[in-house]
Amino acid sequence: MEILSRINGPEDVKKLNQEERTALAVDIRAAVLNKVSKNGGHVGPNLGTVELTIAFHYVFDSPTDKIVWDVSHQSYPHKILTGRKSAFLEEDTFSTVSGYTSQDESQHDFFKIGHTSTSISLAVGLAKGRDLKQEKGNVAALIGDGSLSGGLAFEALNNAAELGSNLIVIVNDNEMSIDENFGGLYRTLAELRETQGQSENNLFKSLGLDYRYIEEGNDVESMIAAFEAVKDIDHPIVLHVHTEKGHGYDHAVADKGLYHWRPPFDLESGEGLNSSNQQSYSGVVVEHLMAEIAAGNTKLAAINAAIPGMFDLPQLKEKHPAHYFDVGIAEAHSVSFAAGLAKNGIRPVLFHSSYFLPRAYDQLSHDLAVNQLPAVIIVGNGHVNESDITHQGIFDIPMINSIPNIKYLAPTNKEELLAMVKWALVQTEGPVAIRLPAGEVISKDTAFLDYSQARYDIQKAGEKVAILALGSYLSLGKEVYQRLTDQLDISPTLINPLFITDLDKNCLEGLKQEHSLVITLEDGSLTGGFGETIAAFYGDSAMKVLNFGATKEFTDNVPMEELAERYRLTPEAIVAEVKKHI
Amino acid sequence: MEILSRINGPEDVKKLNQEERTALAVDIRAAVLNKVSKNGGHVGPNLGTVELTIAFHYVFDSPTDKIVWDVSHQSYPHKILTGRKSAFLEEDTFSTVSGYTSQDESQHDFFKIGHTSTSISLAVGLAKGRDLKQEKGNVAALIGDGSLSGGLAFEALNNAAELGSNLIVIVNDNEMSIDENFGGLYRTLAELRETQGQSENNLFKSLGLDYRYIEEGNDVESMIAAFEAVKDIDHPIVLHVHTEKGHGYDHAVADKGLYHWRPPFDLESGEGLNSSNQQSYSGVVVEHLMAEIAAGNTKLAAINAAIPGMFDLPQLKEKHPAHYFDVGIAEAHSVSFAAGLAKNGIRPVLFHSSYFLPRAYDQLSHDLAVNQLPAVIIVGNGHVNESDITHQGIFDIPMINSIPNIKYLAPTNKEELLAMVKWALVQTEGPVAIRLPAGEVISKDTAFLDYSQARYDIQKAGEKVAILALGSYLSLGKEVYQRLTDQLDISPTLINPLFITDLDKNCLEGLKQEHSLVITLEDGSLTGGFGETIAAFYGDSAMKVLNFGATKEFTDNVPMEELAERYRLTPEAIVAEVKKHI
Repeated sequence: MEILSRINGPEDVKKLNQEERTALAVDIRAAVLNKVSKNGGHVGPNLGTVELTIAFHYVFDSPTDKIVWDVSHQSYPHKILTGRKSAFLEEDTFSTVSGYTSQDESQHDFFKIGHTSTSISLAVGLAKGRDLKQEKGNVAALIGDGSLSGGLAFEALNNAAELGSNLIVIVNDNEMSIDENFGGLYRTLAELRETQGQSENNLFKSLGLDYRYIEEGNDVESMIAAFEAVKDIDHPIVLHVHTEKGHGYDHAVADKGLYHWRPPFDLESGEGLNSSNQQSYSGVVVEHLMAEIAAGNTKLAAINAAIPGMFDLPQLKEKHPAHYFDVGIAEAHSVSFAAGLAKNGIRPVLFHSSYFLPRAYDQLSHDLAVNQLPAVIIVGNGHVNESDITHQGIFDIPMINSIPNIKYLAPTNKEELLAMVKWALVQTEGPVAIRLPAGEVISKDTAFLDYSQARYDIQKAGEKVAILALGSYLSLGKEVYQRLTDQLDISPTLINPLFITDLDKNCLEGLKQEHSLVITLEDGSLTGGFGETIAAFYGDSAMKVLNFGATKEFTDNVPMEELAERYRLTPEAIVAEVKKHI
Repeated sequence: MEILSRINGPEDVKKLNQEERTALAVDIRAAVLNKVSKNGGHVGPNLGTVELTIAFHYVFDSPTDKIVWDVSHQSYPHKILTGRKSAFLEEDTFSTVSGYTSQDESQHDFFKIGHTSTSISLAVGLAKGRDLKQEKGNVAALIGDGSLSGGLAFEALNNAAELGSNLIVIVNDNEMSIDENFGGLYRTLAELRETQGQSENNLFKSLGLDYRYIEEGNDVESMIAAFEAVKDIDHPIVLHVHTEKGHGYDHAVADKGLYHWRPPFDLESGEGLNSSNQQSYSGVVVEHLMAEIAAGNTKLAAINAAIPGMFDLPQLKEKHPAHYFDVGIAEAHSVSFAAGLAKNGIRPVLFHSSYFLPRAYDQLSHDLAVNQLPAVIIVGNGHVNESDITHQGIFDIPMINSIPNIKYLAPTNKEELLAMVKWALVQTEGPVAIRLPAGEVISKDTAFLDYSQARYDIQKAGEKVAILALGSYLSLGKEVYQRLTDQLDISPTLINPLFITDLDKNCLEGLKQEHSLVITLEDGSLTGGFGETIAAFYGDSAMKVLNFGATKEFTDNVPMEELAERYRLTPEAIVAEVKKHI
């Protein structure tokens, strides 16, 4: 770390000679690996961009010259060079920087970014802003080949071609998305690599953009030459840079998928430190689909957008490849594609994450819901979390709740999940979304078989207070039930609603007789969610309603304990509120 | 109409000889013009596709062979040939078919479609469904050059290239979007037209797709030859077809923008029949922006996605072209581009329609809201309407309401709108959306100047009943107020909330003292909207709350009177409900 110890900002990079720049790459790689091996994080993406990041800060003058990192999961070397190296070297300061760029951390970052394919649009905006203000400076976007399949990147390239001023789009081509790339584009990108950029089929030129190919993306001097050649260029240009994902760490090169993002691992052996073989709720769904296909149901399609590992899909991919579809990073297409399949007699099962599903909002509405097509949408990661601001799992409920014709279900255990999936695979009313419960897989004996009409599961029939505890928060509801019973000597009603979007009006009406207070618990953002609809239902009655869930806000790496306290999502806090109202 | 009189389905098209096919084109064109001139509708798009539609049904066997029409605003000739000609010929049956494809109307339509850029994804789904079922048949998508700029079309082309079986993508290149095209793609499409498809820069080939160019897209025999050459092809192919928007009707050819969609007009002279020079609310905003720019504020950018005419933007485009941005059909890019501008010191003002804004949901959240960037979003067409199912204006409130950090304002007249725009242009907290009122422009004397803190406008301070009448429904609220005063002899409180997303908690708390009932009126879908949040606010109190607005449902060309009755949105119905609860 001798060289890195001298680097406190981009200006220090400019002082290095060639030998020192080479040594700096070694130090940065070691710093990245130090943190991700102990803390978990994006491994391969950051190892692949070490050299081009050094070259960028050697050639350009940040922040006058600006770079926008797509997803920004490959920005660790940039962070290390821009005053944040201690967060990679010293374990007790790991948490002082996030896993993505943040303007709160550094003047060298311009946006909080965590979703793909936005960088070129943002850079075109920065560049046009520069032009309108008649200022100078370079604007660059760095985007991975995997992110290029997202339609927004295409919209932005098409617009970038009309900019008429400086813009440098660095396509970081490491031949990988999170998993393998998918799409015709990747055949022609390979042709470009094989021909050193000379192949006729060139996406960028076909959009009217200037283009250059750089083969040695993991060589600092090559990248310096490439950047110097385009610095202060007077029009948009695409630099197609060939890099290696995981470069310089053999384990990461050998298994690029595993090392895209990895929990803590042993640096020497590459063994995971917290390995777990527990079954997951997505695994429950995937195993059922595999059993269906194996039993002869050939009219099934399992679809995801570049994150098969998040949903235990690799096993299905391997055993039933004809029924497996990774559309690449193209959430919008995944949903419209599913609409086409459903219209032609295939039952699509989409796997999406709560925080990426919004990328297909209009397709959920316009293609699936308007047309009442019976697709199944498995929603993962839908819960209050302590993750990054761009990866909050609380907005799926209000989002889906706002769209007609989609039924959104909230199982609380393995059997309910399976029963809902089985029903969703045969019903013909329209799209059905199912929210995977958070936490470990739990079992119970029975589940309703039919979800065509809303029917809440009344687990304890009581009086005075009714607890509607949705999805994973059923366990919280049970704790509240127990405390009310023990402490207040009342026998409340405990309900597992099962249905997020559909009201069991019979049940809700019935509660009016023996209850004066309904409390709702949901593992999501309250505004526009489940509880508010319940409150509105009781608006014209004497029933009081208290909604518990997350405040409508973006949180950024806030510990769960703090969130639970902030949102009054502890049994103590809930019981204290109940006491005020009975 | 001699030939058309013999055509009752695609099978009849196949019986025609060349001369008759030529005559059929004349008849179809006359039928289209008959309806759109009397009824309003898409003119140019349908006149341009007459010949290729005849050729399609001559060569292919619908519905075994399937065609998906992008946006489907060019599907009138297809409707005329598939059993629905009377709805174009006879005025009393005009309303029996919608302006878009509909599987409810015909087995030759597969989806309800009204948004752009979805057709290729849907067709890939249909094709893959065919393959999984081991069936035969051709699947085609027809997409205009304008719609190609939408990212979803790119995602779909990229996926289509990997299909490995029959798919025919017809690119209907009429050199126009709704307005002029924008983007580098359109330069290279022009090169392809000029070189009869031989130019090196070819988007489709750059995605690994087979490609053919057909110059004479308005010649039936050329199109028959082109379709016969690809019928039953064993892999995906793009047919790049050059057509003329408005072909065969001189007025429409001469002004392609005006005739994209036109209200009723005189067929002979081309004069509009219901021309109006009334000021619109979007005009109020645009005129203010023009005045700002003229006064030296060069840090403004007015942005829209291919629908400048809907927002009175052509005047700004003409006078201040440096501050005008039509990004093409690329709603997602428009928002991320605005985020980049805002970050670099420019104040972007986005103009979007309630029903297209969902196409940028994740960009609103991830790029603008997470980063708290002070963009201004003007939302048009946000109201209950009697339009098509894909053009409902009621979901913008729940959608924006679900996203943190966006302030959504609801002016009720010109002065409030202007005051909000002026404030939004200088505030620095984050994105501000403003919902244009429905109906004619009305004026009042004053408006609040500052919208940083939620403050409701209490127009009448009374007791017992408080009416919170949002946006355009303030007039409905006034009627309810008057009836309650006259009929029930009570003095209710009448409030213009102004803020959709932010609660004026002081005001709401204060109402508890003298009121027992709050009624909310909103011109949008209730679920997840303004009223439900108010109901939740009062959930723990004795206040009763009644929400009036649209039911969460898709409606399709339902008359306003029927909707008003269905949703109890008449003064009579509201007062009747109030009577039950006081």
